[in-house]
Amino acid sequence: MTKYYGAIEAGGTKFVCAIGDEQMNIVKRAKFATRRPAETMPEVIEFFKEYPLEKMAIGSFGPIDVNQNSATYGYVTSTPKEGWANYNFLGELKKNFDIDYVWTTDVNVAAYGELKLGAAKGKESVLYLTVGTGVGGGGVINGKLLQGYGHPEMGHIILRRHPEDYYEGNCPYHRDCLEGLAAGPAVEKRHHGQKAVTIPSDNPDWEIEAYYLAQACLDYTLVLSPEMIVFGGGVMHQEHLFEKMRASFSEQMKDYVKTPALDEYIVHAQLGDDAGLTGCLLLAMDK
Amino acid sequence: MTKYYGAIEAGGTKFVCAIGDEQMNIVKRAKFATRRPAETMPEVIEFFKEYPLEKMAIGSFGPIDVNQNSATYGYVTSTPKEGWANYNFLGELKKNFDIDYVWTTDVNVAAYGELKLGAAKGKESVLYLTVGTGVGGGGVINGKLLQGYGHPEMGHIILRRHPEDYYEGNCPYHRDCLEGLAAGPAVEKRHHGQKAVTIPSDNPDWEIEAYYLAQACLDYTLVLSPEMIVFGGGVMHQEHLFEKMRASFSEQMKDYVKTPALDEYIVHAQLGDDAGLTGCLLLAMDK
Repeated sequence: MTKYYGAIEAGGTKFVCAIGDEQMNIVKRAKFATRRPAETMPEVIEFFKEYPLEKMAIGSFGPIDVNQNSATYGYVTSTPKEGWANYNFLGELKKNFDIDYVWTTDVNVAAYGELKLGAAKGKESVLYLTVGTGVGGGGVINGKLLQGYGHPEMGHIILRRHPEDYYEGNCPYHRDCLEGLAAGPAVEKRHHGQKAVTIPSDNPDWEIEAYYLAQACLDYTLVLSPEMIVFGGGVMHQEHLFEKMRASFSEQMKDYVKTPALDEYIVHAQLGDDAGLTGCLLLAMDK
Repeated sequence: MTKYYGAIEAGGTKFVCAIGDEQMNIVKRAKFATRRPAETMPEVIEFFKEYPLEKMAIGSFGPIDVNQNSATYGYVTSTPKEGWANYNFLGELKKNFDIDYVWTTDVNVAAYGELKLGAAKGKESVLYLTVGTGVGGGGVINGKLLQGYGHPEMGHIILRRHPEDYYEGNCPYHRDCLEGLAAGPAVEKRHHGQKAVTIPSDNPDWEIEAYYLAQACLDYTLVLSPEMIVFGGGVMHQEHLFEKMRASFSEQMKDYVKTPALDEYIVHAQLGDDAGLTGCLLLAMDK
């Protein structure tokens, strides 16, 4: 008998839900706008009732509580999104479906998808960074999702400032951490509000952007030593950034540790919008 | 019949070797000065011949090659120590003892020891940092040693400079990375060559030291989310540094992510000089 698995990619603007079978065929798929939980969750639950599910995996926006020893395991914790702060997301699903769950972040599921079927296929470890309205990172190390006491928030590491960067940064917590200096809104504010897509690729501001992203890659490499760093998110549609990042990485690392060849190490995501759902289905099956 | 396990803590100045049984009783133990491999290794091999060994674990100085897919897996790679660069350490052992091995870094075995029997006992994840003549870091995440393409070199991450620090840094690779700013020799050079142990605890240079170590803890926390960060090494005998690090961590993190209470999160190692050997024996048994 066919076995079915549930997948939820829960984002700040929309929920993407899918049901897949063991061959990764998606038998049903839908999007729901992210409103308050009382509005969105009944739609999500109704969606999954059509098929008997074996297991389900959720990749959620956050911060979320992934610590299985915590009283609030399965909760969305401190988001500004109305109704979701301190919301028992996983508990609501469990009330309706008495099955096994994988509960992790949106970037961790994307990392898992890219590791199993995307850019990092065949590897044991990968880091996934998304650079868009924010900077988020997830990973798989030794074949397992990267989470410990909590989940990584690697978009907020502290960087050394580029000597020619006069933009102050816009992270509400740290002002000029990675996200505050390198997410899409920072790129545009640095460039006097001009849309990132209209900034020419030879503008020096892209060198500053590449310097920060490369410095982050350097720190991640020294801390985690992954086999590959995969980038997704809107800002990374600027393909020219990849060569600039690799050059800056090499310049900053000064050959201190060996990495794979940089054009096979700092790379673009391959699964695009499907990385999250793919990762969820695989995680549910592999659990 | 009693089972015996081998442990080698291979340091740049000495090798500590031990044979232990399943109850962690050390039945034999010795130290050998680290000279050239042709001088040191025969002593090491002779040492282990007395007991029939089930398995052996080695925690080595480095950098070393821990990538099992690499042609030079088991080698010490680029050390300046005479005779050890590009030396097939593990291969030499395998020629003499046809058993299973765990091959990793000196800091990874210390992390494993602290996790199993030391400060982080009962946890699934820990980071171990040693701050002495250099800064080295290892870790256990999800119960497994932290290594991927290579092994962490987390002492070399790039930090934001303290605004009142005028010391240039002394890392031969990166000048003012963490090690170049915060290892023992940097502390002393910053303080006009005065021995670290003689610098009073209320000297502002210790605030600078704590700022760098705390910033490193912040980055490690955001990247790895470990359950505990354990510090060892000579510089950390300055117990007053722990309170200063915790205060600076809190100041720099700005409550962005939840961590355990800081006096249970940023802590001193408990196994002292035995962390490495303990970790090796446990790793050999757990393999």
